[in-house]
Amino acid sequence: MWEDGLCALINQVPYQGETCIERALTMKGSSEHGETSKAAPLGRGGVSKGVSVLDLILRFIAIIGTLASAIAMGTTNETLPFFTQFIRFKAQYSDLPTLTFFVVANSIVCAYLILSLPLSIVHIIRSRAKYSRLLLIFLDAAMLALVTAGASAAAAIVYLAHKGNVRANWLAICQQFDSFCERISGSLIGSFGAMVMLILLILLSAIALARR
Amino acid sequence: MWEDGLCALINQVPYQGETCIERALTMKGSSEHGETSKAAPLGRGGVSKGVSVLDLILRFIAIIGTLASAIAMGTTNETLPFFTQFIRFKAQYSDLPTLTFFVVANSIVCAYLILSLPLSIVHIIRSRAKYSRLLLIFLDAAMLALVTAGASAAAAIVYLAHKGNVRANWLAICQQFDSFCERISGSLIGSFGAMVMLILLILLSAIALARR
Repeated sequence: MWEDGLCALINQVPYQGETCIERALTMKGSSEHGETSKAAPLGRGGVSKGVSVLDLILRFIAIIGTLASAIAMGTTNETLPFFTQFIRFKAQYSDLPTLTFFVVANSIVCAYLILSLPLSIVHIIRSRAKYSRLLLIFLDAAMLALVTAGASAAAAIVYLAHKGNVRANWLAICQQFDSFCERISGSLIGSFGAMVMLILLILLSAIALARR
Repeated sequence: MWEDGLCALINQVPYQGETCIERALTMKGSSEHGETSKAAPLGRGGVSKGVSVLDLILRFIAIIGTLASAIAMGTTNETLPFFTQFIRFKAQYSDLPTLTFFVVANSIVCAYLILSLPLSIVHIIRSRAKYSRLLLIFLDAAMLALVTAGASAAAAIVYLAHKGNVRANWLAICQQFDSFCERISGSLIGSFGAMVMLILLILLSAIALARR
């Protein structure tokens, strides 16, 4: 039974024994209702485990968001169907340094989130871990700043590409590069999604620390 | 003696009594060295109190940073000494929507930080508070995202104002509006400083939660 294996693992950690015994007692009473005993976790250990599982799920969503953003932005280019003798009108993300920063920032955050997955899995098993959670909160906050910086800098440039600015005499380029603009606007979504996920991840880690 | 008043307040909170008694014992031994007994805090309570005091100090620094940024950006305008019959060349922050967002974001974060000061002071006295710390971590993370968004969006525009972009045919405006550009570049510093402070504030709250 996988629950037994989990209990054996948990029992290496002090103060978790009671939860396992409680779970075993409940399991005896309703052994055929595996779902109900999972749906109603018992006391602090169960809630902490739920928080840790949610942490893992949110990390996966954030990985997908940042990866999609980086790929969508990184593969964007558009060549206009008309060209003069000397110039071929072509737009790609590396023409604007801010968009390059966006791709780099999203890639770094994505790599960090993938590297943090093992630690998140360890937290499901050892829900009383303290220092590793502190480390994750700090790094999550730093990565939140990085992904927000990338996303909002890119958003400022995308806004400018759409609307232009009359006072600074910057013209909107989206009339010409239509599909380029759509693509770079769309690629922001994943990044802002990851931002929200990271805020929730910080909150979840804090809740797990408070409930130890 | 103010220490007694503080102890009386702390004693309303369970499990804090020992720390006060310990402090009283140390105070008796070195009643003339008030500084030393404050410099060497006793056990968990002392460290938590130190963390809470540091939290308050960092909040003050972040308030100064965001306030300075908002004011420096908000009061920027430059009128060029030459003008045509119809147009007077004038630059101010509200010409660029991104810079307006920067001012608004910094003002909101500054207001939030001022409103969070009473809670931070309560944490110095009641260092075992749990739910209020969780609330602060969540709001700090949200405000970190907001101030980072404002600062990096403004940085993207300031970069463009300095360097321009050849491919998008956006010209650098800093040749003309020299002092305007210097001012908006400088006003970013306070905002990025507040960003670092907020990351540290999240970490400090997490440490305080872990040490309860």
